[in-house]
Amino acid sequence: MDKGRFITIEGGEGAGKTTLIQALAHTLKADGYTVMVTREPGGIRIAEQIRGVILDCDNTMMEPRTEALLYAAARRQHLTEKIMPALQAGQIVICDRFIDSSLAYQGHARGIGMDAIRSINQFAIDGIMPDLTLFMDIEPEVGLQRVRQGDGREINRLDLEDMQFHRLVREGYMLLMQEEPERMVRIDAGGTPEQVLEAALAVIKGRFS
Amino acid sequence: MDKGRFITIEGGEGAGKTTLIQALAHTLKADGYTVMVTREPGGIRIAEQIRGVILDCDNTMMEPRTEALLYAAARRQHLTEKIMPALQAGQIVICDRFIDSSLAYQGHARGIGMDAIRSINQFAIDGIMPDLTLFMDIEPEVGLQRVRQGDGREINRLDLEDMQFHRLVREGYMLLMQEEPERMVRIDAGGTPEQVLEAALAVIKGRFS
Repeated sequence: MDKGRFITIEGGEGAGKTTLIQALAHTLKADGYTVMVTREPGGIRIAEQIRGVILDCDNTMMEPRTEALLYAAARRQHLTEKIMPALQAGQIVICDRFIDSSLAYQGHARGIGMDAIRSINQFAIDGIMPDLTLFMDIEPEVGLQRVRQGDGREINRLDLEDMQFHRLVREGYMLLMQEEPERMVRIDAGGTPEQVLEAALAVIKGRFS
Repeated sequence: MDKGRFITIEGGEGAGKTTLIQALAHTLKADGYTVMVTREPGGIRIAEQIRGVILDCDNTMMEPRTEALLYAAARRQHLTEKIMPALQAGQIVICDRFIDSSLAYQGHARGIGMDAIRSINQFAIDGIMPDLTLFMDIEPEVGLQRVRQGDGREINRLDLEDMQFHRLVREGYMLLMQEEPERMVRIDAGGTPEQVLEAALAVIKGRFS
């Protein structure tokens, strides 16, 4: 790995993205690499302001396409101000969610359409795609159970209604993997943290060393 | 005119858009039509917040594509919250600048590219194009002279450097007119306010009565 590498981590709720990212960064740093871990909006002032508009609870009138454009705007700024300089400095950038989240969640599961979401995100990223995307795949039921255990409560009726949405998110990721099997690699997220880390490292080292 | 009509007014600096819009609204109201005059962000809370991010003087790092996505987001919200309800209520909506401004200024004159700017704006407007667009055409030199007279000063060296940009804006509008000669009609903005109003009314009444 003698130049910057852009790795994104994707997956549904409870897949264990945060745990994997921390372990990956730890291991790669111990191997001597310079690693930057980030996620949108990434502490970038303009991107944080845009997120502030999205998350403003009084903005109940926000239209889904307005929201999608705002996410794309925050992505653009985070990419140009934080990710691209790190890549140009030869670092490994590990980013928690990127374009595929928008495609799977807003494009497929929320029903705006993947092609429509892709068009504005292609404008936002302007050709800067991840070198590698790890899709942490887990059955939505299992992922949700993990999240609820963290919350200290059982799965309820509302959770089950949400389940259809999470199935659609997973389906969206599956479609993306079919389109770009080289870039996007499935990791079985059902194992222990050690097993998941081992699988992820095997993919990364096989790809970049 | 028995249903809503969406009219946009476009043109460079000093073309007299504001004067024409006020006169048009006055005349059409006197003829018994319900007219709504608006311009982005149009007092729409979310759109105003987005403009606040764009105009924040501390955001010197804002990347041109971030800005373009934010303009598209504000446009989407203004369109769905204000313009579409008025059209559905059968009103005549006269909007000061719309998609063609983004295409001419950001796409053509600023060099992001018309196709790229069109892609995010097509997402934003989702098929809601103006029924009629009046392009108020004036020589950039004449338009700037009008603006400077309003400021009470002469044209200076910096103004002349800006001139190349305004020529590109005009060129962008010309390209758009060639693409959609049905929708986009040139109005000679070099005449008196009365002449301009007369020309605009002739187009509107010929089109919609």
